[in-house]
Amino acid sequence: MPVLHQMQMSGNCYKVRLAAHQLGIPLTLQEYGLHTGETRRPEYLAKNPNGRVPLLELDDGRCLPESGAILFYLTEGTHLQPADKWARAEMMQWMFFEQYSHEPYIAVARFVRSYMNDAQRAARGADMEKLMTNGKAALSVMEKHLADRDWFAGDRYSIADIALYGYTHAAEEGGFELANYPAVSRWLQRVSREPRYIPLSHRP
Amino acid sequence: MPVLHQMQMSGNCYKVRLAAHQLGIPLTLQEYGLHTGETRRPEYLAKNPNGRVPLLELDDGRCLPESGAILFYLTEGTHLQPADKWARAEMMQWMFFEQYSHEPYIAVARFVRSYMNDAQRAARGADMEKLMTNGKAALSVMEKHLADRDWFAGDRYSIADIALYGYTHAAEEGGFELANYPAVSRWLQRVSREPRYIPLSHRP
Repeated sequence: MPVLHQMQMSGNCYKVRLAAHQLGIPLTLQEYGLHTGETRRPEYLAKNPNGRVPLLELDDGRCLPESGAILFYLTEGTHLQPADKWARAEMMQWMFFEQYSHEPYIAVARFVRSYMNDAQRAARGADMEKLMTNGKAALSVMEKHLADRDWFAGDRYSIADIALYGYTHAAEEGGFELANYPAVSRWLQRVSREPRYIPLSHRP
Repeated sequence: MPVLHQMQMSGNCYKVRLAAHQLGIPLTLQEYGLHTGETRRPEYLAKNPNGRVPLLELDDGRCLPESGAILFYLTEGTHLQPADKWARAEMMQWMFFEQYSHEPYIAVARFVRSYMNDAQRAARGADMEKLMTNGKAALSVMEKHLADRDWFAGDRYSIADIALYGYTHAAEEGGFELANYPAVSRWLQRVSREPRYIPLSHRP
């Protein structure tokens, strides 16, 4: 069975757990501590030189980092990826948007506010204004897209929605007010009603 | 003919020009100024609410932002994407790595050092140490991968190489010393010898 090297609280890891669960793909979870530096030790760097979770390790030892790549790999050829070429391009658009313009602000604001220890927070607190400004900009881009669309890529739920859901649904832990984004809030509800949905806290 | 809304000096835009040229796909280039704020005006935001270049506009008006998504769209089904499922996962891995762990440091250090005006540089200069540290870390991850591999995904040139080449080949404009990364330097040479290669400065 593939091993997902992960941290339960990480939205990037949750995305992989959610997609795998919805497809009925069993994963063994290998948990790492938040503040232990375990993912920077030589044993881990041998699997992922970039020292991050999530990392998918196959039975034969091949390792795949990057949540977007793992989502793409696990769902290729399934209903969680659109078949239409343009919708696939939109899927990639929103997955790259999430990693470049959304996660570095919304996930990091959440981490600073809700998961850092005091020493870490003192060192990063000065960044909060920029994190909030850019995070709100990302939510506004999503709000605009969802004004006349139910989903991010094509006309149905896909890994683009899963990628954006991971940290958007937990954005209030970063100090963002989701009530200011009504179309985003309705989309969050839609995602949570998809078949075989699991919340971030779910463990197999 | 599709229009590429772009800035000539942008590595993200160059990636699209390089892939399109290698596939013989003609593009009309619509150039934007570096410091003019043109991509934040309503006319542009109507095409891309995220206000960035590159943006690919098709003949029918459909618009696709995000360099990674444009690369994926233009090259689907061509020799610039591997056919093997695992190699495709590696392709996505390195494209997400580039946008998350490489571009925000190497491209931004280059922009601060070589393209900002004095007022911008004064406001961002304090970030340089972090940009350099994280940029060097990204180059080291690439160096490690290339120790026993010629290409990033599978065993041949793909859009993963194009995505990483865009800013790596210009990293010295950001203050990085590529001579410290001999495997990366050899890979840069390999990319530049690919058929129908064009440099960043090339205009059709």
